[in-house]
Amino acid sequence: MVKIINSKPEDFLYQQVADRIEQLIRQESLKTGDKLLSVRMLSKEQGISMSTAFQAYAQLEARGLIEARPKSGYYVRLHPKKLPLPRVTKPEPVEQEISLSEMIMSVFKDLASEEVIQFSVGAPSLELLPAAKLNKSVLHALRESKFHGLNYEHIQGNPALRHQVAKLAFNWSGNITSEEVVITAGCMEAIVMCLRAVTKPGDTVAVESPTYFGILQALESLGLKALEIPTCPEWGPELNFLEDALQQFSIAACVFVPNFNNPLGSCMPDEHKRQLVQMLAKHSVPLIEDDIYGEMYFGEHRPKTCKTYDTEGWVMQCGSFSKSLAPGYRVGWALPGKWTKQVVHNKLITSVSGTTLTQAAIAHFLENGRYELHLKRLRKALHVQCLRYLQAIHTHFPPDIHITRPEGGFVLWIELPERVNAFELYQRARQRGISFAPGQIFSTQGKSYGNCMRISFGRPFDAEMERGIEILGKLIRSHLI
Amino acid sequence: MVKIINSKPEDFLYQQVADRIEQLIRQESLKTGDKLLSVRMLSKEQGISMSTAFQAYAQLEARGLIEARPKSGYYVRLHPKKLPLPRVTKPEPVEQEISLSEMIMSVFKDLASEEVIQFSVGAPSLELLPAAKLNKSVLHALRESKFHGLNYEHIQGNPALRHQVAKLAFNWSGNITSEEVVITAGCMEAIVMCLRAVTKPGDTVAVESPTYFGILQALESLGLKALEIPTCPEWGPELNFLEDALQQFSIAACVFVPNFNNPLGSCMPDEHKRQLVQMLAKHSVPLIEDDIYGEMYFGEHRPKTCKTYDTEGWVMQCGSFSKSLAPGYRVGWALPGKWTKQVVHNKLITSVSGTTLTQAAIAHFLENGRYELHLKRLRKALHVQCLRYLQAIHTHFPPDIHITRPEGGFVLWIELPERVNAFELYQRARQRGISFAPGQIFSTQGKSYGNCMRISFGRPFDAEMERGIEILGKLIRSHLI
Repeated sequence: MVKIINSKPEDFLYQQVADRIEQLIRQESLKTGDKLLSVRMLSKEQGISMSTAFQAYAQLEARGLIEARPKSGYYVRLHPKKLPLPRVTKPEPVEQEISLSEMIMSVFKDLASEEVIQFSVGAPSLELLPAAKLNKSVLHALRESKFHGLNYEHIQGNPALRHQVAKLAFNWSGNITSEEVVITAGCMEAIVMCLRAVTKPGDTVAVESPTYFGILQALESLGLKALEIPTCPEWGPELNFLEDALQQFSIAACVFVPNFNNPLGSCMPDEHKRQLVQMLAKHSVPLIEDDIYGEMYFGEHRPKTCKTYDTEGWVMQCGSFSKSLAPGYRVGWALPGKWTKQVVHNKLITSVSGTTLTQAAIAHFLENGRYELHLKRLRKALHVQCLRYLQAIHTHFPPDIHITRPEGGFVLWIELPERVNAFELYQRARQRGISFAPGQIFSTQGKSYGNCMRISFGRPFDAEMERGIEILGKLIRSHLI
Repeated sequence: MVKIINSKPEDFLYQQVADRIEQLIRQESLKTGDKLLSVRMLSKEQGISMSTAFQAYAQLEARGLIEARPKSGYYVRLHPKKLPLPRVTKPEPVEQEISLSEMIMSVFKDLASEEVIQFSVGAPSLELLPAAKLNKSVLHALRESKFHGLNYEHIQGNPALRHQVAKLAFNWSGNITSEEVVITAGCMEAIVMCLRAVTKPGDTVAVESPTYFGILQALESLGLKALEIPTCPEWGPELNFLEDALQQFSIAACVFVPNFNNPLGSCMPDEHKRQLVQMLAKHSVPLIEDDIYGEMYFGEHRPKTCKTYDTEGWVMQCGSFSKSLAPGYRVGWALPGKWTKQVVHNKLITSVSGTTLTQAAIAHFLENGRYELHLKRLRKALHVQCLRYLQAIHTHFPPDIHITRPEGGFVLWIELPERVNAFELYQRARQRGISFAPGQIFSTQGKSYGNCMRISFGRPFDAEMERGIEILGKLIRSHLI
């Protein structure tokens, strides 16, 4: 490492050290995601005290240039001032019929294609998943279960798995019994089951704006209307707007993604979650909480959930192993509060029961503590990927964009200059073998996000992904001419 | 074997032989399901020509006392005159809102329980399924597939499996390409996806009467009304009534189970199928054809399907491996004709995609020709079980009942004397650890089948099942006092 020497005599030594490291970062000798020396090594290499080395890193952290990761060390992060956050969204306050299907199908028909550079899948790529260990759990389930997975599973789901899912609630300070857990074929099935339990066709459901297009499609398929709530890329839905909407409209339910929102990446502060739960309980409005990204946090602690603050059963939390473990296993769950019996019934009449074998395999995987170990690795990998994608976007995209800085999850949300049409951009990118999710599909109000795009950082960053980002950058610039 | 001697001089020899065998059957020296001597052995033992022995068996077959099974020989069957068939049903010609949920949930919450003598599950018991061979296919899929089943499967389903399902159409003289196949999580999901493609809430759907309660629940959950069509226990729906109904009501779709109907066991003659398809096409009404039992025939040939006669894509056929191979794998399919694109879309928005691993395993199982071999064994086993259950019911139930004689599938439908309330009977049976499906749940017109019950013969007949039938018989008799 380059020796760091005093520059300005009035500075404290730790500031000088921090300045020199900043310079290395700005000239890209140290890149986003690079690991820094340990405090001990820095002290040794620079001939400074441990305490000075620690202060230098603290200073760089305060400047937003590096970040500490628990039990791992310090890493270079992006300079946060470089690109601004997207603004709080301003959807029209109207109840909207939904019709997005064609555009979404055209984007997602290639979900399983390997020939496309995928920036459109909001999930980790498969090399980040513990295939070998999961295979062992499948073998265990095949051998040890009485009927080798041939039997119909209990409608409510494998009892051992329900117990494990209930235990996961400990991570978000919840207190759940296995009787409150309903296993589903992934999180979307859970959300649909919950919606069917608390709404009827023609009802209005409040959602964040923008929101995951799958939620909008579910509403559409159930004949429901969407009411989009303004949402902040940092804090999530604007609760004062929601309060007004609850007065003004007859809202049958809310479907929110409070932790690492898809697509905004926002994470509701705990206090907001508490307020939200109280507000909805007061109005007797159920909250369907999509917590599918909650375990994929980059910080020290798993964020709490709205269910954490739910004392009366108004919160129906939905989750899944699809984003963290095995998309193809089709195992998710609902914690439907007051409506548990109704959700079990909906499960019975839609798909009878879930896949027996994959439920047993995941139960075994969790029972052996493998899930927690895997999640630790996955979170670190995703954090590094997030930083590298951000870096590449900074390098290759035009400078007048807004971009989110999520603290978890899989996706970045980018506001391009207003004259860019993201769906047209998508179509041109698709011809170049690149896929991303254009902003239009995240809202019922087509034009609201016509200049936005969602980029997934679920795939490890490599030369191919960099090339993809570079091509996207060029296409955007050509749009701007 | 007892020597068979001429009794009346005017009879032909073969008739005399047949008479003596009939006597053995009537005095139960030969029991239902027993295998008879081969033609060669009979000729040898009785000192008669092969041709006379053959004629004797043909005579007994004509009398309905025995039956030939291809490549297996002759078996004693039930004397068909002994108990009459149930009558053609007469539901009220009204469009009916549906509300059966509580009763059905109470019957089916024990679906996976092993402590109950199950006459209520319309599926083969697990010991009839090829666990060891299927395990091999799972292992193959785990090892050979690139991502070990972790990846999201194509929305439309595993391509190799779709190819295999398309090939199955050959069995019913159909001509299907894999592009027309949509893989689903079982047959019920397929039916729901098809219903959602062709109906909207408030629409009316024609069904057989009685019909599988799962179909009624699906209609209920989609806000649809049911119009029940009179149905014959032998030939299926009465097409003249349907023709009238098509004139009189606005029918959005039909959901029929033409082959080995659940619960009636009826099998529509080919000519009726052709007429039905033509009639519906003329009225532009889609037919959702539940063919889940089609492969479980006891005769020589697989019955054709309505899809066989579908030239314009009005028939949406649904099927599954749940009844024939692996209920817990959750793999079924739809052949949705004109609506293939819409059904794929419905699949995406409800459950994203199916379980990757179990689809790959079943594809491998079929590719290796194991499915056909397994089906041959399964059909024979079910046929014997059907005869043994019928025999036991004849023995233990009161004589004034009507009962079906299905030529395939898993279920018997019994009409008890009118003063029996089947749901009350069910509740009393449940206290004795026995479960069956009471007639009430098969109709929107609660009282129509209040004296009927469905008995599944999916479990091999043994002392425990005989005890169950015996207890049921006693409970029925006690109801009649």
